[in-house]
Amino acid sequence: MTFSIHAATVPPMRLMLKNLSAILSKAQSHVEARKIDPAAFLASRLYPDMLPFVAQIQIASDTAKGAAARLAGVEIPKFEDNETTFAELQARIDKTIAFLDSLPEAQFEGAESRRITLPLRTRTMEFSGAEYLTTWALPNFYFHVTTAYALLRHGGVEIGKTDFLRGSVVS
Amino acid sequence: MTFSIHAATVPPMRLMLKNLSAILSKAQSHVEARKIDPAAFLASRLYPDMLPFVAQIQIASDTAKGAAARLAGVEIPKFEDNETTFAELQARIDKTIAFLDSLPEAQFEGAESRRITLPLRTRTMEFSGAEYLTTWALPNFYFHVTTAYALLRHGGVEIGKTDFLRGSVVS
Repeated sequence: MTFSIHAATVPPMRLMLKNLSAILSKAQSHVEARKIDPAAFLASRLYPDMLPFVAQIQIASDTAKGAAARLAGVEIPKFEDNETTFAELQARIDKTIAFLDSLPEAQFEGAESRRITLPLRTRTMEFSGAEYLTTWALPNFYFHVTTAYALLRHGGVEIGKTDFLRGSVVS
Repeated sequence: MTFSIHAATVPPMRLMLKNLSAILSKAQSHVEARKIDPAAFLASRLYPDMLPFVAQIQIASDTAKGAAARLAGVEIPKFEDNETTFAELQARIDKTIAFLDSLPEAQFEGAESRRITLPLRTRTMEFSGAEYLTTWALPNFYFHVTTAYALLRHGGVEIGKTDFLRGSVVS
């Protein structure tokens, strides 16, 4: 068995998106049971100048599809960033997983050495595929999934680390 | 170039621990400038039944040293979990990085297929090294680093995602 860049990218991102989906379902049940306006969570922030909850999910999705597409050498699918409900966020996660699943594993061969150029607002980052995945895409992905989790946890949704790590896989 | 389990473990964990250290330095400057009791951050939580800030750093450290030791097939160093100041948390991070740096890269050869057994409170998890790293150790590590960041951000420390992703490396 060899360790591949596909193994380090697609299965863990897929698992975490599934877990995030299960966490969103718990949040939705929470607001329904308590007759809370879902916007109270969807617009929530930990500090006024942070991006809100909805953006955390959108960027987690962007990071997953961006990483998989760049490493596989295909175009990144564009999603609209127009989600305003839990159901629409679930659809966004489903679309992201469907994109990951559409990429043949063989397409990632040699991706560790692929040159990745990432235009940011103020500068352009350059990485090997391996550096890009391990020091940029994965930390960024987990940052936004964890921040989404933290916002729900802070708001009183009954979730714990088992939901984050194992989600619906081990229950 | 091949992609190795060492490359997916030690360099990114090392980088994130360095970034976490730089973030802690900003938090310390923040409390000093405002004459805030550091305990206000060290004991902070996003919800009453969560582990406090200090534990987030301790568990990030535990996850890093545990992952590296298990994959390298050496004993996990024991740290005391007795940190009560920012300076002691910095020392904890330094000790963790020193342990990662002490492991020769060659010791990770074949670790992707190594059987990893993880005794938890209620059950024992079994993984290949590759599964353990990508679906358990890395998500868990990033969970605690991000939660530590979130607690400081929520408390008003002036940090942003650049601190999280690039820390002192790109400034």
